Amino acid sequence: ERCGYPEVIYGLHKSAERILSASREILKLKTNVLISRINQEKANILITEFPDAFYCETAQIAYIGDFIQKFDSKLLIISAGTSDESVVKEAYYSALAFGLKPTLIQDLGVAGLHRLLAYKDELSQADCIIVAAGMEGALPSVVGGLTTAPIIAVPTSVGYGANMEGVTTMMAMLSSCASGLSVVNIDNGFGAAYAALRMIKTFEKK
Amino acid sequence: ERCGYPEVIYGLHKSAERILSASREILKLKTNVLISRINQEKANILITEFPDAFYCETAQIAYIGDFIQKFDSKLLIISAGTSDESVVKEAYYSALAFGLKPTLIQDLGVAGLHRLLAYKDELSQADCIIVAAGMEGALPSVVGGLTTAPIIAVPTSVGYGANMEGVTTMMAMLSSCASGLSVVNIDNGFGAAYAALRMIKTFEKK
Amino acid sequence: ERCGYPEVIYGLHKSAERILSASREILKLKTNVLISRINQEKANILITEFPDAFYCETAQIAYIGDFIQKFDSKLLIISAGTSDESVVKEAYYSALAFGLKPTLIQDLGVAGLHRLLAYKDELSQADCIIVAAGMEGALPSVVGGLTTAPIIAVPTSVGYGANMEGVTTMMAMLSSCASGLSVVNIDNGFGAAYAALRMIKTFEKK
Amino acid sequence: ERCGYPEVIYGLHKSAERILSASREILKLKTNVLISRINQEKANILITEFPDAFYCETAQIAYIGDFIQKFDSKLLIISAGTSDESVVKEAYYSALAFGLKPTLIQDLGVAGLHRLLAYKDELSQADCIIVAAGMEGALPSVVGGLTTAPIIAVPTSVGYGANMEGVTTMMAMLSSCASGLSVVNIDNGFGAAYAALRMIKTFEKK
Amino acid sequence: ERCGYPEVIYGLHKSAERILSASREILKLKTNVLISRINQEKANILITEFPDAFYCETAQIAYIGDFIQKFDSKLLIISAGTSDESVVKEAYYSALAFGLKPTLIQDLGVAGLHRLLAYKDELSQADCIIVAAGMEGALPSVVGGLTTAPIIAVPTSVGYGANMEGVTTMMAMLSSCASGLSVVNIDNGFGAAYAALRMIKTFEKK
Amino acid sequence: ERCGYPEVIYGLHKSAERILSASREILKLKTNVLISRINQEKANILITEFPDAFYCETAQIAYIGDFIQKFDSKLLIISAGTSDESVVKEAYYSALAFGLKPTLIQDLGVAGLHRLLAYKDELSQADCIIVAAGMEGALPSVVGGLTTAPIIAVPTSVGYGANMEGVTTMMAMLSSCASGLSVVNIDNGFGAAYAALRMIKTFEKK
Amino acid sequence: ERCGYPEVIYGLHKSAERILSASREILKLKTNVLISRINQEKANILITEFPDAFYCETAQIAYIGDFIQKFDSKLLIISAGTSDESVVKEAYYSALAFGLKPTLIQDLGVAGLHRLLAYKDELSQADCIIVAAGMEGALPSVVGGLTTAPIIAVPTSVGYGANMEGVTTMMAMLSSCASGLSVVNIDNGFGAAYAALRMIKTFEKK
Amino acid sequence: ERCGYPEVIYGLHKSAERILSASREILKLKTNVLISRINQEKANILITEFPDAFYCETAQIAYIGDFIQKFDSKLLIISAGTSDESVVKEAYYSALAFGLKPTLIQDLGVAGLHRLLAYKDELSQADCIIVAAGMEGALPSVVGGLTTAPIIAVPTSVGYGANMEGVTTMMAMLSSCASGLSVVNIDNGFGAAYAALRMIKTFEKK
Ligand SMILES: Nc1ncnc2c1ncn2[C@@H]1O[C@H](COP(=O)(O)O)[C@@H](O)[C@H]1O
Ligand SMILES: Nc1ncnc2c1ncn2[C@@H]1O[C@H](COP(=O)(O)O)[C@@H](O)[C@H]1O
Ligand SMILES: Nc1ncnc2c1ncn2[C@@H]1O[C@H](COP(=O)(O)O)[C@@H](O)[C@H]1O
Ligand SMILES: Nc1ncnc2c1ncn2[C@@H]1O[C@H](COP(=O)(O)O)[C@@H](O)[C@H]1O
Ligand SMILES: [Mg+2]
Ligand SMILES: [Mg+2]
Ligand SMILES: [Mg+2]
Ligand SMILES: [Mg+2]
Ligand SMILES: [Mg+2]
Ligand SMILES: [Mg+2]
Ligand SMILES: [Mg+2]
Ligand SMILES: [Mg+2]
Repeated sequence: ERCGYPEVIYGLHKSAERILSASREILKLKTNVLISRINQEKANILITEFPDAFYCETAQIAYIGDFIQKFDSKLLIISAGTSDESVVKEAYYSALAFGLKPTLIQDLGVAGLHRLLAYKDELSQADCIIVAAGMEGALPSVVGGLTTAPIIAVPTSVGYGANMEGVTTMMAMLSSCASGLSVVNIDNGFGAAYAALRMIKTFEKK
Repeated sequence: ERCGYPEVIYGLHKSAERILSASREILKLKTNVLISRINQEKANILITEFPDAFYCETAQIAYIGDFIQKFDSKLLIISAGTSDESVVKEAYYSALAFGLKPTLIQDLGVAGLHRLLAYKDELSQADCIIVAAGMEGALPSVVGGLTTAPIIAVPTSVGYGANMEGVTTMMAMLSSCASGLSVVNIDNGFGAAYAALRMIKTFEKK
Repeated sequence: ERCGYPEVIYGLHKSAERILSASREILKLKTNVLISRINQEKANILITEFPDAFYCETAQIAYIGDFIQKFDSKLLIISAGTSDESVVKEAYYSALAFGLKPTLIQDLGVAGLHRLLAYKDELSQADCIIVAAGMEGALPSVVGGLTTAPIIAVPTSVGYGANMEGVTTMMAMLSSCASGLSVVNIDNGFGAAYAALRMIKTFEKK
Repeated sequence: ERCGYPEVIYGLHKSAERILSASREILKLKTNVLISRINQEKANILITEFPDAFYCETAQIAYIGDFIQKFDSKLLIISAGTSDESVVKEAYYSALAFGLKPTLIQDLGVAGLHRLLAYKDELSQADCIIVAAGMEGALPSVVGGLTTAPIIAVPTSVGYGANMEGVTTMMAMLSSCASGLSVVNIDNGFGAAYAALRMIKTFEKK
Repeated sequence: ERCGYPEVIYGLHKSAERILSASREILKLKTNVLISRINQEKANILITEFPDAFYCETAQIAYIGDFIQKFDSKLLIISAGTSDESVVKEAYYSALAFGLKPTLIQDLGVAGLHRLLAYKDELSQADCIIVAAGMEGALPSVVGGLTTAPIIAVPTSVGYGANMEGVTTMMAMLSSCASGLSVVNIDNGFGAAYAALRMIKTFEKK
Repeated sequence: ERCGYPEVIYGLHKSAERILSASREILKLKTNVLISRINQEKANILITEFPDAFYCETAQIAYIGDFIQKFDSKLLIISAGTSDESVVKEAYYSALAFGLKPTLIQDLGVAGLHRLLAYKDELSQADCIIVAAGMEGALPSVVGGLTTAPIIAVPTSVGYGANMEGVTTMMAMLSSCASGLSVVNIDNGFGAAYAALRMIKTFEKK
Repeated sequence: ERCGYPEVIYGLHKSAERILSASREILKLKTNVLISRINQEKANILITEFPDAFYCETAQIAYIGDFIQKFDSKLLIISAGTSDESVVKEAYYSALAFGLKPTLIQDLGVAGLHRLLAYKDELSQADCIIVAAGMEGALPSVVGGLTTAPIIAVPTSVGYGANMEGVTTMMAMLSSCASGLSVVNIDNGFGAAYAALRMIKTFEKK
Repeated sequence: ERCGYPEVIYGLHKSAERILSASREILKLKTNVLISRINQEKANILITEFPDAFYCETAQIAYIGDFIQKFDSKLLIISAGTSDESVVKEAYYSALAFGLKPTLIQDLGVAGLHRLLAYKDELSQADCIIVAAGMEGALPSVVGGLTTAPIIAVPTSVGYGANMEGVTTMMAMLSSCASGLSVVNIDNGFGAAYAALRMIKTFEKK
């Protein structure tokens, strides 16, 4: 455990065996294991050994342990479109595994403001908001004007052409006219949940 | 006259003398002259010879001729912030010189939605909307969801760092989740007015 | 229906089942359904349930409903080369589904001016022109000098090396020496047709 | 007041008169005024009218109002080198104006680890840490491994050549191997303080 | 003399004294001297010592020696707009100094095809054509379809925003749909003339 | 025939049937057909109908017609490494089909100067030199200093990382310290041969 | 043998046969052969002919010859994470084949400083250090502050999004605040070992 | 002293007073002071207080202390052109201040191979070579093939257009076909000298 948080394995470039052996070692320490970016095929092998493990294919996340809520702060996770689903689900299940209390609302894109405005209460009651969007990445700017809560913007790679695989989205979020947004890497739902954890853990502890 | 429009001189890289001699030649043809990107110093020299010439320093536009409205369509020009003023004024005076009927509303940025929504009527009654924004360039996306009118998006170079002198803004607008937006070059208020002219002239003529 | 237009499903990242369920829901509202970026395999599943659905593999477009012309304005769609076919066909069938009256002429590239000039009449009679081109993207500039009609430029990803998957083409179109062109995203035939719809719907309604 | 925070004027592209008139209007509402990116010359004019105004040339920040601490959370602001001074001072005085309780420690660059490690206590006691660095932007990654507090990384434009005016630094911070960092725009000390405000205000209120 | 051509000094980063001393040394060898990228101020100092030296401020070129035609091939130099003047004049005077026989025609941009087509004879009779253009850089593509002569395309930095200081123009020319164009660096009129010299010298010698 | 040269089909994005039908139409006009970027599979289908057709898999070129030399000028084609083979063979067979007289020498990279210098005679006797190189693209600069012949530089996509799929190579060649080089698109062996054809055809005709 | 070092074949773009024939030719000269970037399939064919050949799939390196240590200097090779394994193993086996004496320590990333600091002795005793890291590439900067030995930084392509396939990492390393680091291409473990060889061979010879 | 080397002040963003006070503090420790990137104006103030200080305007380097040679290894510093002078002089005087034994030879660009080859002896006798070049940056590749010594390549910002202020040069050097080159930041003569110091100090100590 690097700095007091659950143990995480980044599964993308690792073989199933490697993920298994790393998991076994972590579990010896009686720590739960979160595996990100793990595909169905590797997950099947994992589940053969750990039949109780949780796995969500959309989020590409596996988790060996119990989802036990440890924090009370309201973490709201929203997305601009249904194409951002894998990213917000990565954020959602990471948050669950961290003991946070997340709520997920999808498809609140700025080209259909009425849908977003229908959730004004949820926005104003949240203690922390993760906002994922692809394409032009405008959603965090609009949300930033509707609430004073901390906002973690996650650019997604949804889009094509001028979108530059999410680079345009990320740069746009960093250039936002709404003050005090902070941004994580493209498609980094895990990192956004972790940023929320840093915040909530620190302040609930006080 | 290239294709039936007023004569335009792009003043940026031209000396005052060059602008003057070009203006004289055009005026012989009894055509009005619009000069874009002309600074105060060159404009002063122009005005010495043509004391009736119009000049707006903010827009860096000079015009020798009368502003005579020739078209009835409602052209709405809006901006996200007051820093976009030079761009929307370039669009506004170009439109005036083209005989269009423009209205200008500034500072409707998406981080303060209430201001934008206060102009819902103006938006829904417009026949064509020019939307200028810098930074993340989100305004055209939001407007695109509020109206079915044609929208010409103008990215401005307002911003810094990740904004990349307007390139991020432009790329974001081209990646918009709102369908049917079309985009002109960074800070190109003149081009946006010209695109409106192409549209309005063609359809009013019918 | 977001703002008064037909319902559109962007099919690229959606499974066949998801497209089917979304289609069923839209059809309950008695609205026609346009599905863009849908491949042959997914289209086959769609057609099993909706045998009358239209599908064009080149354009990757499916349509459940009747193509009924609602607008009289002349929409001309032209391309620089036959390699741009998928893009102009996306524009063409989108336009048909929107009730527009499009004509498609391909392979008018600027390295063979005679072919383009042979269509001068079509160009001058058009109320709106969609111009698709890849590589250096010069066609809209040349067309822009031959007509005063509104021009929607569509950069395509046809080319290699310095073409940067269409980014060079797009940037070149945005830098055009012909005034009043407006540009949509790379390969975005659908968006170009939608921009034409915004224009034609607004002005024919008047 | 957009969403419950002090009124801020972004002074960079505004004339002294514009800043003055905007300030007068805000002060009528009995709100304090923070002006960012305002140079000495404009500040002199401001101070003629508001002799009690605070001004820091390094930070390019002016403030009309009293610095009254409203929040108790410990905000630590650190930088990698003395060349990042203008950025961390922008963060520092913004934080002061927001009523936060900031501490500033400069010159903790990763090429001299001993200096950073000497401040381990300050790091572990902070409730929120703003970390500014230029060049390769490594400092937030190292800090991220030393503490579980929320970290707001500010890339600065200090460097040359491959540094690309801070773009490399920003991209590096977004790619950090330390989880849960979030990033603001290049040189955006104000935005970092504002992100801290969002967090502290929300959680202290609870 | 590196490989049989006149001696050239690239003046941009050199002081007047350095240019003078280099010129003196070359002249001892009885070779003529061409100095490129030399401004008026440095040229004045040069002319004090060499009163017969030729200088053109627009082209930023000085030449100590006689312009003696040594080759008969027809070198045509054309540009898209008058803003490209400094570049084509750099090409023109370099060509003259090399003993070539250049003709210069300006302002043949593709948005005004009639002007270009009026010069069809000049195009078809040329042995080599240097084509300079800024913005979208379409002119070489169109010329490439009108003639079988060798074409050297020179992108110029004329434009703004999406033009990226000529990079878009250069990339567009390299992506041209017209076959067999070759391209030199942005604003490199000298290099284009030198490429013509390589060709003409080699083939006239045969 | 666009401008007096053989008919060329760019095969990359075309189906075998499309290539076949286009070939048939061209052959009716008694012109030979050159097909570039055609893979083995499509070539097999072509050869079934045209058993005498030439095909080179490395060059991805097919040719229906006779290779008849029409020009006497010496065209030298050289490459820096054997990995550039597909590019120089595309140039070589294109040149053969155009009736040129090419010689091909491979693997003369600048890190092994002795090999290059061993071919000094070939270099000094050539009338036109096509120089292909990947990685840092230094070969044309060195050759440019060894000969006064016209040089057409072809950047190849050989390399990785900082090479940026040939973009670095291309930019480096355009920045060459050797004067009068001209450059074609990345991997564009066909275009280089065509540029040589333009030159040789024009000058041999005189 | 180009300049006194072992013969190396870059296997990536070469067929198994080509690698075999090149190997045979080199072995005739009684030189050992190192083949980089060779996959399992090609290696199998190689091993059929040379059953004693060494092959490491992770490093994609084959070696025909004996690993004989010729130099005594201590070459330390370290990496930030286990995902950098293929790169450091390419460096390791290249170094072995060159006769160097490498030690490899993995997973010393800066987000876990304690692990790095645990190897302080190894760092201070090394004569040359190869430091591989992906993501933000901070490890060489930290190592640069802990030791006065020569450091060769190898950026790896480990990461996603803002990492830009290692370009961000490379640019960050080149912008390092630690003086005297030098950098090789992305994933270029071989090049790093070769740079170490140049150094050690030159200085041990003295 | 960070890790056993002389104290260095990076003067670019520092005022003359700041440089003075930093210098005084360092001198108390009886360490010599090297100030890089210090202009004439600031240097004049420095020299008023330290009349014996060394200053070179071209290199923008000041040094308070004695140049005492401490190491015997031959450090060769070469450049491609005279425009690279400021960079190689920064390297040269840094090396002198470090106690190294540098030799400087300028203007050995690859377009004039004979000049480079004339220094073959110097190249083969050097223990370490710093190679600075701008434009296409080919010189290190050629030198890399002529010698087995360690080579530190310094890209310079000399060039224009496609040179991208040295980025092209840097990327080209990192892509070099010559093995074992390592690269420092653009114009970083100081860093190159420091890399040489790391190497020479480590190996002479043994
Ligand atoms: N999806 C993800 N994106 C970015 N970082 C991650 C992700 N998943 C895990 N990580 C980080 O990667 C580290 C594990 O890397 P490793 O030791 O290679 O498994 C953990 O400390 C996490 O902080
Ligand atoms: N080919 C396309 N390119 C860009 N946008 C599209 C395309 N096809 C559909 N859309 C837009 O995508 C939206 C539907 O997205 P979704 O709700 O994810 O299916 C519609 O409102 C369309 O405006
Ligand atoms: N490999 C190639 N690279 C660039 N252009 C090519 C290539 N092969 C053929 N062409 C050009 O493409 C045109 C044919 O395009 P198409 O009509 O689409 O077959 C010809 O006029 C050629 O000039
Ligand atoms: N020209 C230069 N380029 C890059 N780094 C430098 C340069 N000059 C000095 N440095 C580094 O900058 C550090 C001093 O920075 P500072 O403490 O801001 O004066 C020293 O440790 C040097 O390693
Ligand atoms: Mg949606
Ligand atoms: Mg505003
Ligand atoms: Mg065609
Ligand atoms: Mg420091
Ligand atoms: Mg013109
Ligand atoms: Mg070779
Ligand atoms: Mg690790
Ligand atoms: Mg030289």
